Amino acid sequence: MSVATRSEHDLIGDREVPLEAYWGVHTLRALENFPITGIPIGKSPYLVEALASVKQAAAAANHDLGLLDDERHAAITDACEEIRGGALADQFVVDVIQGGAGTSTNMNANEVIANRALELMGHKKGEYALLHPNEHVNLSQSTNDVYPTAVKIAIILATKDLLAAMEVLEESFARKADEFHDVLKMGRTQLQDAVPMTLGQEFHTYSLMIGEDRARLGEAVLLLHEINLGATAIGTMLNAPAGYVSSACEHLARLTGLPLESAVDLIEATQDCGAFVQLSGTLKRVAVKLSKICNDLRLLSSGPRAGFNEINLPAVQAGSSIMPGKVNPVIPEVVNQVAFQIIGHDVTVTMAAESGQLQLNAFEPVICYSLSAGISRLREAIMVLAGRCVDGITANAELLRAEVENSIGLVTALNPYIGYAAATEVAKEALATGRGVAELVLEHGLLPREKLEAILRPETLANLAPRTYQPKP
Amino acid sequence: MSVATRSEHDLIGDREVPLEAYWGVHTLRALENFPITGIPIGKSPYLVEALASVKQAAAAANHDLGLLDDERHAAITDACEEIRGGALADQFVVDVIQGGAGTSTNMNANEVIANRALELMGHKKGEYALLHPNEHVNLSQSTNDVYPTAVKIAIILATKDLLAAMEVLEESFARKADEFHDVLKMGRTQLQDAVPMTLGQEFHTYSLMIGEDRARLGEAVLLLHEINLGATAIGTMLNAPAGYVSSACEHLARLTGLPLESAVDLIEATQDCGAFVQLSGTLKRVAVKLSKICNDLRLLSSGPRAGFNEINLPAVQAGSSIMPGKVNPVIPEVVNQVAFQIIGHDVTVTMAAESGQLQLNAFEPVICYSLSAGISRLREAIMVLAGRCVDGITANAELLRAEVENSIGLVTALNPYIGYAAATEVAKEALATGRGVAELVLEHGLLPREKLEAILRPETLANLAPRTYQPKP
Amino acid sequence: MSVATRSEHDLIGDREVPLEAYWGVHTLRALENFPITGIPIGKSPYLVEALASVKQAAAAANHDLGLLDDERHAAITDACEEIRGGALADQFVVDVIQGGAGTSTNMNANEVIANRALELMGHKKGEYALLHPNEHVNLSQSTNDVYPTAVKIAIILATKDLLAAMEVLEESFARKADEFHDVLKMGRTQLQDAVPMTLGQEFHTYSLMIGEDRARLGEAVLLLHEINLGATAIGTMLNAPAGYVSSACEHLARLTGLPLESAVDLIEATQDCGAFVQLSGTLKRVAVKLSKICNDLRLLSSGPRAGFNEINLPAVQAGSSIMPGKVNPVIPEVVNQVAFQIIGHDVTVTMAAESGQLQLNAFEPVICYSLSAGISRLREAIMVLAGRCVDGITANAELLRAEVENSIGLVTALNPYIGYAAATEVAKEALATGRGVAELVLEHGLLPREKLEAILRPETLANLAPRTYQPKP
Amino acid sequence: MSVATRSEHDLIGDREVPLEAYWGVHTLRALENFPITGIPIGKSPYLVEALASVKQAAAAANHDLGLLDDERHAAITDACEEIRGGALADQFVVDVIQGGAGTSTNMNANEVIANRALELMGHKKGEYALLHPNEHVNLSQSTNDVYPTAVKIAIILATKDLLAAMEVLEESFARKADEFHDVLKMGRTQLQDAVPMTLGQEFHTYSLMIGEDRARLGEAVLLLHEINLGATAIGTMLNAPAGYVSSACEHLARLTGLPLESAVDLIEATQDCGAFVQLSGTLKRVAVKLSKICNDLRLLSSGPRAGFNEINLPAVQAGSSIMPGKVNPVIPEVVNQVAFQIIGHDVTVTMAAESGQLQLNAFEPVICYSLSAGISRLREAIMVLAGRCVDGITANAELLRAEVENSIGLVTALNPYIGYAAATEVAKEALATGRGVAELVLEHGLLPREKLEAILRPETLANLAPRTYQPKP
Repeated sequence: MSVATRSEHDLIGDREVPLEAYWGVHTLRALENFPITGIPIGKSPYLVEALASVKQAAAAANHDLGLLDDERHAAITDACEEIRGGALADQFVVDVIQGGAGTSTNMNANEVIANRALELMGHKKGEYALLHPNEHVNLSQSTNDVYPTAVKIAIILATKDLLAAMEVLEESFARKADEFHDVLKMGRTQLQDAVPMTLGQEFHTYSLMIGEDRARLGEAVLLLHEINLGATAIGTMLNAPAGYVSSACEHLARLTGLPLESAVDLIEATQDCGAFVQLSGTLKRVAVKLSKICNDLRLLSSGPRAGFNEINLPAVQAGSSIMPGKVNPVIPEVVNQVAFQIIGHDVTVTMAAESGQLQLNAFEPVICYSLSAGISRLREAIMVLAGRCVDGITANAELLRAEVENSIGLVTALNPYIGYAAATEVAKEALATGRGVAELVLEHGLLPREKLEAILRPETLANLAPRTYQPKP
Repeated sequence: MSVATRSEHDLIGDREVPLEAYWGVHTLRALENFPITGIPIGKSPYLVEALASVKQAAAAANHDLGLLDDERHAAITDACEEIRGGALADQFVVDVIQGGAGTSTNMNANEVIANRALELMGHKKGEYALLHPNEHVNLSQSTNDVYPTAVKIAIILATKDLLAAMEVLEESFARKADEFHDVLKMGRTQLQDAVPMTLGQEFHTYSLMIGEDRARLGEAVLLLHEINLGATAIGTMLNAPAGYVSSACEHLARLTGLPLESAVDLIEATQDCGAFVQLSGTLKRVAVKLSKICNDLRLLSSGPRAGFNEINLPAVQAGSSIMPGKVNPVIPEVVNQVAFQIIGHDVTVTMAAESGQLQLNAFEPVICYSLSAGISRLREAIMVLAGRCVDGITANAELLRAEVENSIGLVTALNPYIGYAAATEVAKEALATGRGVAELVLEHGLLPREKLEAILRPETLANLAPRTYQPKP
Repeated sequence: MSVATRSEHDLIGDREVPLEAYWGVHTLRALENFPITGIPIGKSPYLVEALASVKQAAAAANHDLGLLDDERHAAITDACEEIRGGALADQFVVDVIQGGAGTSTNMNANEVIANRALELMGHKKGEYALLHPNEHVNLSQSTNDVYPTAVKIAIILATKDLLAAMEVLEESFARKADEFHDVLKMGRTQLQDAVPMTLGQEFHTYSLMIGEDRARLGEAVLLLHEINLGATAIGTMLNAPAGYVSSACEHLARLTGLPLESAVDLIEATQDCGAFVQLSGTLKRVAVKLSKICNDLRLLSSGPRAGFNEINLPAVQAGSSIMPGKVNPVIPEVVNQVAFQIIGHDVTVTMAAESGQLQLNAFEPVICYSLSAGISRLREAIMVLAGRCVDGITANAELLRAEVENSIGLVTALNPYIGYAAATEVAKEALATGRGVAELVLEHGLLPREKLEAILRPETLANLAPRTYQPKP
Repeated sequence: MSVATRSEHDLIGDREVPLEAYWGVHTLRALENFPITGIPIGKSPYLVEALASVKQAAAAANHDLGLLDDERHAAITDACEEIRGGALADQFVVDVIQGGAGTSTNMNANEVIANRALELMGHKKGEYALLHPNEHVNLSQSTNDVYPTAVKIAIILATKDLLAAMEVLEESFARKADEFHDVLKMGRTQLQDAVPMTLGQEFHTYSLMIGEDRARLGEAVLLLHEINLGATAIGTMLNAPAGYVSSACEHLARLTGLPLESAVDLIEATQDCGAFVQLSGTLKRVAVKLSKICNDLRLLSSGPRAGFNEINLPAVQAGSSIMPGKVNPVIPEVVNQVAFQIIGHDVTVTMAAESGQLQLNAFEPVICYSLSAGISRLREAIMVLAGRCVDGITANAELLRAEVENSIGLVTALNPYIGYAAATEVAKEALATGRGVAELVLEHGLLPREKLEAILRPETLANLAPRTYQPKP
């Protein structure tokens, strides 16, 4: 079956492009050159939206400055609005991993917008003499300012979703902290029984950790709001008219609703990947904490009979194809794996950033993909962790209290009264005989019963704070 | 619009499954639990093929041992054959990143095979009383032996493709080494001019590097041929009948055509991820070398006027949306990025392997995905590097020879005749004055002209080996 | 030769300790248990100083609260002051890499301080009945609050040095940016000639990058000022008297001159390694940028005849044992290597942080060592980069200007006047014929000479900003 | 106090060197240029030994080929023999991290050997006219062949020690496997109770893992036996006389007792870091497994009362400065930390290898240091793990058996008799009621008692192999 085509021309020669395609010869070359992952950029809705926003802002600035006439401006604007509304995503076909520092992504956008604008003007696709992907859609621009600007916007938008998910999880842990406020248990250091605390304190910690990470991530994403639009090829603003930088940035801020700012030095901003490295490092921090928390959840729910068995994770699927009745901590496990991916991605981002040379980093596509995929997966993982795991956790409160009463770690509280050396002897005897600490202290006459009971009051030991949780309205 | 459904039951309760779906309730749970990447396992044809092969081999062993009757055996076999032939790939819907150590992948396979087998037996999907995903398709099996076995087979198959691509690239470099056999140029150490060599020697090195990496990768993949099929839950072969381990392994070797062997110790084999770590480390080695080679290609082709300008990479797309006529090294750039991904994946695999606990590693899905995606991308990247870059490289031979004649590094060859100290003085003078080394040596009467010319014969300096290239038939 | 000894006792039994040693039985056990790197903690002066500061602050708080009598308080204080002044560093002998979450480091400090205090009180070492390492020096403390607090202080102090070094380097680049303000050169993207800029702009970028990294590092180190002193074992403040937390923190802030603050939640603070991960990620960012800059410096100084040859790095040593007169970029090379170490350390820190379990991270020693060694090496590397490399860089200004005049990239500036398509044709002809862009434009009558010359004015092309550099007083 | 000096000269000028120093002006420059870690190469005895071996072998080859007279050859040989015997280690003073691709290390060796040889010839240090560091000690050599060859030998020697330590650990685990041969326990998957096994099987697995890693490490180190001695600057053998390559390699093999071989292609061998990357990857594999094993040991010994409490690690030090009687798993913890360092080093090695350009990798010093330090630390960690932890582990056999009898996982063994669905119901009821599986099966009449008991015989469940351990003589 033959497909109807139109002919297009580039530096290398002429090529036939499917007549129906909004993309053109530059995109065609990229499809042939980069058959790497099979994942097209159109699968990244925020990137497509951001590209259209940048193009629309540039057109507005060019129009303001008299470089673009009303008709072309209107057509480009309408095309961009359609794309920002979700149209034509299937026309963004170049691979997420590509050489050329994003040129193919930029040209894919230029071509789709040009052809859609041509249609809106009543012309046919490919009639570039009337509206040209480079001359008009890419006017006053270079891949080297368009691409990083669009990538930053896309990542800002994705990070907002991630931050919202983190807030959900923070709240899930906070609710559980409240629920488990009075559940006394043994704290552990180095996996060895240490001193008493409450399960509420344990879950409160997780809530706080997520909260702190939210704060750090919020700071890191702020750095992405500094853009280099108008820098053109290397930051010298060559071919960008006077006034363009500030105008384009203002239009873009307006269109996206984001407090974007022009970088102070566009040459530096054009080659620098510092903001991406910072964000990646902070995502890694989030991943590290989440993974630690999930390790803990899996440990605390180990058992049911030959494990810690302190908490129960909700059963969300049968655990085994061979072991009947087995329920596994599958949700924490999937979060761990996403965390390992984020940590691996950070190494990828690091190497890509380190490998940038002179006035440009040619490896931004893999930085963009690593961050975007990571942020999106992290968000999904966090949402299932909150909704399918944490919210349904229950505690085995009786077993937990028995652990405390039976523990040797209680002896620590006696240090100030009987001294470290005597306490050590009691601990050794308790361990050797299997007897209880309190019992031995009384037997050896180290403390009167009344005093001992006062010291060992669980609430005192755990230094329990009053309940402070306020559910979100 | 309502979809017709059937009801299925699992540990947690009853659920409606789309009537048309070959997958069942276990898969449904996994879809809900793991909405992580949006990439279903069905996008990994080798994994689907391998799963079907394992199930078919297990059924054959069960049949041989009298555990599975003729009718069910025939139906399971036919269903597996269809899947191995490419059918029903769209029914393998669980996410590549999942908790549960692969249980969802195994259950997805069990359900699809059971339902297809039921159809082939003339029954309806879901009539599990007649042929059950667990009781019959998964008979004598556990996720913990099925999944790693299937993953190993899938990775072996993918690696074969990668090795073939590497051979293509090795040959591309070898052909260029032959073509550039006599092209004299300056060798460099630490980016500083060193001593003469030929461009043929430089490209021969790349060919050798790829060849050595092929050898290492071939060794690493051998380790994956040791499987734990029949180990069941933890390697104690619980519920696998006597004779099953060897029978299943033999059937699987026959079906796949691979020299698979049962691990000597199935408990160790069930928890050990060493073979995956080894493969990942070797893939990283391949990535490191490829990235180094691409760095060199980009450097050698830098310019055209303010760079090394030693070689020309073929133009495969316009380089810039703003700079007319610019051609960029987009193919090496995309290879670099894939290499950075492989290196990042290695960290992911490392962490996943390190995090395995006791009798099982719960994080094999992310190991499987990282390796599979990496191998596939590496293969694609290598093919475009060979076909769209290396094969079309040309040399600027005149410029290269002028570099040698103009170089200060020539003075090194005079060490044995005039000594390191005198040679150093000549070099300093040449650098300060811009004059040639030979000219200065003669002027200072350090060597007679005849002797000097004999020493500086380019072929001698480069220690040129005779042409040995034999094109592949 | 027999060494005079004294006998000491611990949980495990009695041991002979060298009579002269200020450390005791706990340290002895650690020496036997951890013969890992051969690097004692005493080689980290900031850590020793910080440990002494923490112990002194704790003693002061205990004294204020009536738990420690005047005499012991005075003796402990004097011993700590001596150590903070640099004394007894050779008594801090435990290995930097140790199990036990820092217990051995804490006990080494407790023992040295106790024994020195005993001497100051007129007693002999080992007379612990009079002043005990645990009962008095470690009073109201646990390793789990002392150790992370001391580590944070040590890292804060080291980071101050690093920040100062970065300022030196920033200034070095700024001075060079000023010196090279008017040196026109070709900018490059993807190693291909792009459009003109100045060498001053290039070096200004490096200065800005270092400056931005300083700002980020300054933010990251702020997080370390939140300490958990008084948390004791797991953050419940067990055995720390009321008022101790705030008192100890105030004393410590006073002693160190640092704005330290108690963490809001001591349980969270005791197990959380987020601040270390954040710092490590930011150090990695610094390393990435420095490595990128050094890559550029090595590239720009490549040659002298078969390379870019744009700048000259000062010769600081002979480059080669065989190639006379060769000078290599050895200073940037050593900086690259330190950067690779920092990036590797970040993975170590990441894994150590991720592996923390429940109420404590047992792996803080390797986090502490990785950060400390990294910060110290980075500081040294930056100082040699500034003083032995950047300060002595010179430019080959004539060659640089010729590059611009000879470049094809000039054609980009003509886009707005002759269009991208015509400009592409000119570029292709220039590349094929070796002729100049201006010459071809005139020949083809694309622009009048006057107009052309106005467009191609170098200062316009580079968009040169006025000189703004103000040397530091 | 003024130090007596002698004057030396290099490319850059004249410098005073301490009269007593065996090192000279090149070393002095390096000391000034690279004040990075404070760790001199002399702290790496194997590297110093390897350098002396290489120099001695080169001298022997030069003597055989008539390039070095008898007297100088004898003096150089004697000096090298002394150094190989451990003398003059304190004269190898350059920093382990250095720019210049190892030139400073090579020149440090050349100078020390020359000056010691001069003394042995009856001359003074510095009388280089009689025997010159470059002209004679470095004759026919370049840093670029000497340094990687010496590094490879040093790493081979260090790896032999590591392999010996691994064998010790393998044997320790094997002995414990034998000791615990009959100790029945619950196996776990995903930290959830699975099916029965023995503690002997668990420890046997660790022994096997170490054994497999030994095999892999043995293979990886083989690759280092291929050397490039004689390659000189870039592999073209410039200035190395005919016959030198094979002669020098033979002498070096004889001196070291190692089966060294000349690389087939010296140009490739001079720039390639593949063997280092492979070794690093394999060390990482060893680290991953060791870390996994130590994670397990810490988990199995968690408690004593609120943990798994299956095994007891020997107490090697008091665990806590505040919690009396606490014993922590400090030995596994230190091994974990060393593993994290190895994994971090692998990233450092990877980046250093990837960053090599054209004919040489300038970053070999950081590769050498990362590998050497890693191997040495790993060896130490393994020895303490074997001797101070594994050898003293005891089992809580009664508790372990009770776990099995009390477990729900037993139900898995009933699958083949009562079916997966019925078994699931039993498991659910057991979990909900806290009752035993066997009891419920009987109560529901699912199996007769006799049959049930036969199925649940522990030895059958664990599929116990006969005792096979043979202690090493």
